[in-house]
Amino acid sequence: MLNQILEPGDASLDRVFQALADPGRRLMVERLSRGPASVSELGKPLAMSLAAVVQHVQVLEASGLVRTQKIGRTRTCSIDPAALRSAETWISERRSLWDRRLDRLGDYLLDTPGENP
Amino acid sequence: MLNQILEPGDASLDRVFQALADPGRRLMVERLSRGPASVSELGKPLAMSLAAVVQHVQVLEASGLVRTQKIGRTRTCSIDPAALRSAETWISERRSLWDRRLDRLGDYLLDTPGENP
Repeated sequence: MLNQILEPGDASLDRVFQALADPGRRLMVERLSRGPASVSELGKPLAMSLAAVVQHVQVLEASGLVRTQKIGRTRTCSIDPAALRSAETWISERRSLWDRRLDRLGDYLLDTPGENP
Repeated sequence: MLNQILEPGDASLDRVFQALADPGRRLMVERLSRGPASVSELGKPLAMSLAAVVQHVQVLEASGLVRTQKIGRTRTCSIDPAALRSAETWISERRSLWDRRLDRLGDYLLDTPGENP
């Protein structure tokens, strides 16, 4: 299951990274990481129409980063940490592959102190 | 400096997440995390023209995820781990804010075992 989520070709990662590529949507994720909020609360710090805020929330919801629940007339948004974790794991695995490669290169250079007789 | 990189409104994060939102570009990053490669090597596993590969490499380079260097007639690509780290840090900070919030909520519920007299 994890492997499936983390395949480079997985469309769900496309949607998560695409959702995070917008500064307004990152501000919403930032706000929601401190706790649930209504759609109108999410829009307050952003200079955009409520319709635009709703569209951004829909992109976040489709990516799996955010869940929404309608209670009465208010739609409340909250973080779904699984999608955030998938993206974090994908990046950190590549970054640590690269770091380990550099470490091995360093070890090799230390073990090979030149062509001394 | 770190704070500046990690601001939600930072355009460099826009470009990093946008670059990672494409499965072909993620495959390139995946390949490069195991070591430098030429542009044509990067293109081999992908069913696309060399021109398309070059365009993807340019997007990766503009995002800061990849550095390229031309030696003779070959352009060699390698990972620049700083951009990967910025994206990883941004995500992990939001994810851990959310996790800490859940932990505090759990502590609160444990400390509040109902309305016992």
